[in-house]
Amino acid sequence: MNEIHERFLKRCIELSKQAAAQGNHPFGALLVRDGKIVLEAENTVNSEVDITGHAELNLVRRAIRELGEAVVKECTLYTSTEPCAMCSGAIYWAGVPKVVFACSAKRLGEIAGESLLFPCREVFARGVRSVEVNGPILEDAAAEVHAGFW
Amino acid sequence: MNEIHERFLKRCIELSKQAAAQGNHPFGALLVRDGKIVLEAENTVNSEVDITGHAELNLVRRAIRELGEAVVKECTLYTSTEPCAMCSGAIYWAGVPKVVFACSAKRLGEIAGESLLFPCREVFARGVRSVEVNGPILEDAAAEVHAGFW
Repeated sequence: MNEIHERFLKRCIELSKQAAAQGNHPFGALLVRDGKIVLEAENTVNSEVDITGHAELNLVRRAIRELGEAVVKECTLYTSTEPCAMCSGAIYWAGVPKVVFACSAKRLGEIAGESLLFPCREVFARGVRSVEVNGPILEDAAAEVHAGFW
Repeated sequence: MNEIHERFLKRCIELSKQAAAQGNHPFGALLVRDGKIVLEAENTVNSEVDITGHAELNLVRRAIRELGEAVVKECTLYTSTEPCAMCSGAIYWAGVPKVVFACSAKRLGEIAGESLLFPCREVFARGVRSVEVNGPILEDAAAEVHAGFW
Protein backbone atom coordinates (compact mmCIF):
# COMPACT_ATOMS: atom_id res chain seq x y z
CA MET A 1 0.00 0.00 0.00
CA ASN A 2 2.81 2.39 0.89
CA GLU A 3 4.28 1.95 -2.60
CA ILE A 4 1.09 3.30 -4.14
CA HIS A 5 1.01 6.11 -1.58
CA GLU A 6 4.65 6.97 -2.29
CA ARG A 7 4.02 7.29 -6.00
CA PHE A 8 1.33 9.91 -5.47
CA LEU A 9 3.18 11.66 -2.66
CA LYS A 10 6.24 12.02 -4.91
CA ARG A 11 4.01 13.82 -7.39
CA CYS A 12 2.76 16.08 -4.54
CA ILE A 13 6.37 16.91 -3.67
CA GLU A 14 6.99 17.78 -7.34
CA LEU A 15 3.96 20.06 -7.21
CA SER A 16 5.29 21.68 -4.03
CA LYS A 17 8.57 22.49 -5.81
CA GLN A 18 6.61 23.83 -8.76
CA ALA A 19 4.65 26.09 -6.40
CA ALA A 20 7.89 27.50 -4.96
CA ALA A 21 9.19 28.06 -8.49
CA GLN A 22 6.08 30.20 -9.10
CA GLY A 23 6.88 32.33 -6.06
CA ASN A 24 4.42 30.55 -3.78
CA HIS A 25 4.87 28.45 -0.65
CA PRO A 26 6.03 24.88 -1.30
CA PHE A 27 2.86 22.83 -1.00
CA GLY A 28 1.14 20.53 -3.49
CA ALA A 29 -1.88 18.24 -3.33
CA LEU A 30 -3.88 15.97 -5.62
CA LEU A 31 -6.95 13.76 -5.73
CA VAL A 32 -6.86 10.11 -6.76
CA ARG A 33 -9.84 8.05 -7.84
CA ASP A 34 -9.58 4.39 -8.85
CA GLY A 35 -5.78 4.63 -8.87
CA LYS A 36 -5.68 7.65 -11.18
CA ILE A 37 -4.96 11.33 -10.53
CA VAL A 38 -8.11 13.30 -11.30
CA LEU A 39 -7.07 16.78 -10.09
CA GLU A 40 -3.95 18.57 -8.89
CA ALA A 41 -3.41 21.87 -7.08
CA GLU A 42 -0.60 24.00 -5.73
CA ASN A 43 -0.31 26.74 -3.16
CA THR A 44 -1.29 30.09 -4.73
CA VAL A 45 -1.08 32.41 -1.70
CA ASN A 46 1.36 34.85 -3.31
CA SER A 47 0.54 34.57 -7.00
CA GLU A 48 -3.19 35.13 -6.40
CA VAL A 49 -2.84 37.30 -3.29
CA ASP A 50 -5.11 34.83 -1.54
CA ILE A 51 -4.39 34.01 2.09
CA THR A 52 -6.71 30.99 1.73
CA GLY A 53 -4.92 29.66 -1.37
CA HIS A 54 -3.38 26.61 0.28
CA ALA A 55 -2.93 23.59 -2.00
CA GLU A 56 -5.58 21.44 -0.30
CA LEU A 57 -8.18 24.20 -0.09
CA ASN A 58 -7.62 25.10 -3.75
CA LEU A 59 -7.93 21.41 -4.60
CA VAL A 60 -11.24 20.69 -2.87
CA ARG A 61 -12.76 23.99 -3.97
CA ARG A 62 -12.09 23.11 -7.60
CA ALA A 63 -12.96 19.44 -7.09
CA ILE A 64 -16.50 20.14 -5.87
CA ARG A 65 -17.07 22.50 -8.79
CA GLU A 66 -15.37 20.47 -11.54
CA LEU A 67 -15.90 16.87 -10.43
CA GLY A 68 -18.93 17.11 -8.17
CA GLU A 69 -19.60 15.86 -4.66
CA ALA A 70 -20.35 12.27 -5.68
CA VAL A 71 -16.91 11.88 -7.28
CA VAL A 72 -15.07 13.64 -4.45
CA LYS A 73 -16.58 11.13 -1.99
CA GLU A 74 -14.70 8.36 -3.85
CA CYS A 75 -11.31 10.09 -3.85
CA THR A 76 -8.20 9.97 -1.71
CA LEU A 77 -6.48 13.31 -1.13
CA TYR A 78 -2.68 13.23 -1.20
CA THR A 79 -0.69 16.20 0.02
CA SER A 80 2.99 17.06 0.40
CA THR A 81 2.40 18.32 3.97
CA GLU A 82 -0.22 17.57 6.59
CA PRO A 83 -3.24 19.86 6.08
CA CYS A 84 -3.62 22.84 8.46
CA ALA A 85 -6.82 23.44 10.46
CA MET A 86 -8.29 25.54 7.63
CA CYS A 87 -7.59 22.90 4.99
CA SER A 88 -8.69 20.03 7.23
CA GLY A 89 -12.00 21.83 7.66
CA ALA A 90 -12.32 22.34 3.89
CA ILE A 91 -11.48 18.66 3.28
CA TYR A 92 -14.13 17.66 5.79
CA TRP A 93 -16.81 19.91 4.28
CA ALA A 94 -15.97 18.63 0.78
CA GLY A 95 -16.63 15.05 1.89
CA VAL A 96 -13.19 13.62 1.11
CA PRO A 97 -13.01 10.23 2.88
CA LYS A 98 -9.24 9.60 2.90
CA VAL A 99 -6.14 11.76 3.38
CA VAL A 100 -2.49 10.76 2.93
CA PHE A 101 0.30 13.20 3.74
CA ALA A 102 4.12 13.24 3.51
CA CYS A 103 5.57 15.85 5.91
CA SER A 104 3.83 16.19 9.29
CA ALA A 105 2.64 19.53 10.68
CA LYS A 106 5.05 19.00 13.57
CA ARG A 107 8.04 18.61 11.27
CA LEU A 108 7.00 21.63 9.22
CA GLY A 109 6.82 23.64 12.47
CA GLU A 110 10.34 22.59 13.38
CA ILE A 111 11.60 23.82 10.01
CA ALA A 112 9.44 26.88 9.26
CA GLY A 113 8.78 28.02 12.81
CA GLU A 114 5.68 27.13 14.75
CA SER A 115 2.48 28.82 13.76
CA LEU A 116 -0.94 27.18 13.90
CA LEU A 117 0.18 23.69 14.84
CA PHE A 118 -2.77 21.38 14.52
CA PRO A 119 -2.57 17.69 13.66
CA CYS A 120 -5.31 17.12 11.05
CA ARG A 121 -6.50 14.00 12.88
CA GLU A 122 -7.61 16.24 15.76
CA VAL A 123 -9.81 18.30 13.44
CA PHE A 124 -11.32 15.24 11.76
CA ALA A 125 -11.94 13.61 15.16
CA ARG A 126 -14.62 16.26 15.79
CA GLY A 127 -16.60 15.34 12.70
CA VAL A 128 -19.62 13.08 12.57
CA ARG A 129 -18.27 11.22 9.54
CA SER A 130 -14.84 9.63 9.68
CA VAL A 131 -11.83 10.67 7.61
CA GLU A 132 -9.12 8.03 7.32
CA VAL A 133 -5.64 9.54 7.64
CA ASN A 134 -2.28 8.06 6.67
CA GLY A 135 1.02 9.80 7.29
CA PRO A 136 3.70 10.87 7.62
CA ILE A 137 5.03 8.86 4.66
CA LEU A 138 8.18 9.95 2.73
CA GLU A 139 8.55 12.66 5.37
CA ASP A 140 12.27 13.29 4.82
CA ALA A 141 11.86 13.94 1.10
CA ALA A 142 8.98 16.35 1.72
CA ALA A 143 10.77 18.05 4.63
CA GLU A 144 13.83 18.62 2.42
CA VAL A 145 11.78 20.96 0.21
CA HIS A 146 10.75 22.98 3.27
CA ALA A 147 14.31 23.05 4.62
CA GLY A 148 15.44 24.62 1.35
CA PHE A 149 12.68 27.20 1.35
CA TRP A 150 11.88 28.68 4.77
CA MET B 1 -18.91 47.43 24.84
CA ASN B 2 -21.67 44.91 24.20
CA GLU B 3 -23.83 47.68 22.72
CA ILE B 4 -21.24 48.29 20.03
CA HIS B 5 -20.88 44.56 19.47
CA GLU B 6 -24.65 44.16 19.22
CA ARG B 7 -24.91 46.82 16.54
CA PHE B 8 -22.45 45.01 14.28
CA LEU B 9 -23.80 41.56 15.11
CA LYS B 10 -27.30 42.70 14.14
CA ARG B 11 -25.90 43.64 10.74
CA CYS B 12 -24.29 40.17 10.52
CA ILE B 13 -27.66 38.60 11.23
CA GLU B 14 -29.19 40.74 8.46
CA LEU B 15 -26.46 39.50 6.13
CA SER B 16 -27.21 35.92 7.16
CA LYS B 17 -30.86 36.38 6.20
CA GLN B 18 -29.77 37.96 2.93
CA ALA B 19 -27.58 34.91 2.22
CA ALA B 20 -30.53 32.59 2.78
CA ALA B 21 -32.66 34.74 0.48
CA GLN B 22 -30.00 34.16 -2.22
CA GLY B 23 -30.32 30.40 -1.78
CA ASN B 24 -27.24 30.08 0.41
CA HIS B 25 -26.75 29.03 4.02
CA PRO B 26 -27.65 31.70 6.60
CA PHE B 27 -24.28 33.12 7.61
CA GLY B 28 -22.95 36.67 7.41
CA ALA B 29 -19.75 38.36 8.58
CA LEU B 30 -18.07 41.74 8.44
CA LEU B 31 -14.90 43.59 9.35
CA VAL B 32 -14.84 46.73 11.50
CA ARG B 33 -11.97 49.19 11.73
CA ASP B 34 -12.07 52.28 13.91
CA GLY B 35 -15.78 51.75 14.60
CA LYS B 36 -16.71 51.53 10.90
CA ILE B 37 -17.65 48.58 8.69
CA VAL B 38 -14.97 48.22 6.00
CA LEU B 39 -16.07 44.96 4.36
CA GLU B 40 -19.02 42.56 4.44
CA ALA B 41 -19.49 39.01 3.18
CA GLU B 42 -22.11 36.31 3.04
CA ASN B 43 -22.10 32.57 2.61
CA THR B 44 -21.88 31.69 -1.12
CA VAL B 45 -21.64 27.88 -0.95
CA ASN B 46 -24.62 27.26 -3.24
CA SER B 47 -24.62 30.33 -5.48
CA GLU B 48 -20.94 29.91 -6.37
CA VAL B 49 -20.82 26.11 -6.02
CA ASP B 50 -17.95 26.61 -3.60
CA ILE B 51 -17.75 24.33 -0.57
CA THR B 52 -15.26 26.80 0.97
CA GLY B 53 -17.55 29.81 0.45
CA HIS B 54 -18.36 30.37 4.13
CA ALA B 55 -18.98 34.00 5.11
CA GLU B 56 -15.81 34.38 7.18
CA LEU B 57 -13.53 32.71 4.65
CA ASN B 58 -15.00 34.84 1.84
CA LEU B 59 -14.50 37.89 4.03
CA VAL B 60 -10.84 37.40 4.91
CA ARG B 61 -9.94 36.26 1.39
CA ARG B 62 -11.33 39.50 -0.01
CA ALA B 63 -9.97 41.58 2.88
CA ILE B 64 -6.35 40.59 2.29
CA ARG B 65 -6.71 41.33 -1.42
CA GLU B 66 -8.75 44.53 -1.18
CA LEU B 67 -7.61 46.09 2.10
CA GLY B 68 -4.19 44.55 2.62
CA GLU B 69 -2.63 42.75 5.58
CA ALA B 70 -1.75 45.92 7.50
CA VAL B 71 -5.40 47.03 7.59
CA VAL B 72 -6.73 43.55 8.42
CA LYS B 73 -4.46 43.47 11.48
CA GLU B 74 -6.41 46.48 12.85
CA CYS B 75 -9.86 44.99 12.30
CA THR B 76 -12.38 43.13 14.41
CA LEU B 77 -14.28 40.36 12.63
CA TYR B 78 -17.96 40.06 13.51
CA THR B 79 -19.93 37.00 12.45
CA SER B 80 -23.50 35.77 12.86
CA THR B 81 -22.26 32.33 13.97
CA GLU B 82 -19.04 31.12 15.56
CA PRO B 83 -16.48 30.33 12.82
CA CYS B 84 -15.90 26.65 11.94
CA ALA B 85 -12.42 25.09 12.01
CA MET B 86 -11.84 26.02 8.35
CA CYS B 87 -12.84 29.64 8.88
CA SER B 88 -10.96 29.92 12.17
CA GLY B 89 -7.84 28.78 10.33
CA ALA B 90 -8.44 31.34 7.57
CA ILE B 91 -9.00 34.08 10.16
CA TYR B 92 -5.76 33.12 11.86
CA TRP B 93 -3.75 33.09 8.63
CA ALA B 94 -5.21 36.46 7.64
CA GLY B 95 -3.94 38.02 10.88
CA VAL B 96 -7.29 39.17 12.27
CA PRO B 97 -6.73 39.99 15.96
CA LYS B 98 -10.32 39.98 17.31
CA VAL B 99 -13.44 37.91 16.65
CA VAL B 100 -16.96 38.51 17.95
CA PHE B 101 -19.74 36.02 17.22
CA ALA B 102 -23.48 35.77 17.90
CA CYS B 103 -24.62 32.12 17.73
CA SER B 104 -22.22 29.53 19.16
CA ALA B 105 -21.11 26.44 17.22
CA LYS B 106 -22.73 24.34 19.95
CA ARG B 107 -26.12 26.03 19.51
CA LEU B 108 -25.87 25.73 15.71
CA GLY B 109 -25.17 22.01 16.16
CA GLU B 110 -28.28 21.61 18.31
CA ILE B 111 -30.39 23.23 15.58
CA ALA B 112 -28.77 22.07 12.32
CA GLY B 113 -27.46 18.70 13.51
CA GLU B 114 -23.94 18.15 14.69
CA SER B 115 -21.24 18.15 12.07
CA LEU B 116 -17.72 19.47 12.63
CA LEU B 117 -18.24 20.88 16.09
CA PHE B 118 -15.23 22.93 16.97
CA PRO B 119 -15.20 25.95 19.28
CA CYS B 120 -13.07 28.57 17.50
CA ARG B 121 -11.18 29.32 20.71
CA GLU B 122 -9.69 25.81 20.53
CA VAL B 123 -8.30 26.46 17.06
CA PHE B 124 -6.89 29.88 18.00
CA ALA B 125 -5.35 28.41 21.17
CA ARG B 126 -2.90 26.50 18.96
CA GLY B 127 -1.56 29.64 17.31
CA VAL B 128 1.56 31.53 18.27
CA ARG B 129 -0.22 34.89 18.12
CA SER B 130 -3.36 35.43 20.17
CA VAL B 131 -6.84 36.02 18.80
CA GLU B 132 -9.27 37.64 21.23
CA VAL B 133 -12.73 36.07 21.06
CA ASN B 134 -16.04 37.40 22.34
CA GLY B 135 -19.29 35.47 22.14
CA PRO B 136 -21.90 34.25 22.14
CA ILE B 137 -23.66 37.64 22.13
CA LEU B 138 -27.24 38.06 20.83
CA GLU B 139 -27.31 34.28 20.49
CA ASP B 140 -31.10 33.89 20.51
CA ALA B 141 -31.60 36.34 17.63
CA ALA B 142 -28.94 34.60 15.54
CA ALA B 143 -30.18 31.12 16.45
CA GLU B 144 -33.68 32.09 15.36
CA VAL B 145 -32.45 32.48 11.77
CA HIS B 146 -30.99 28.97 11.90
CA ALA B 147 -34.14 27.53 13.46
CA GLY B 148 -36.13 28.86 10.53
CA PHE B 149 -33.73 27.49 7.95
CA TRP B 150 -32.34 24.04 8.77
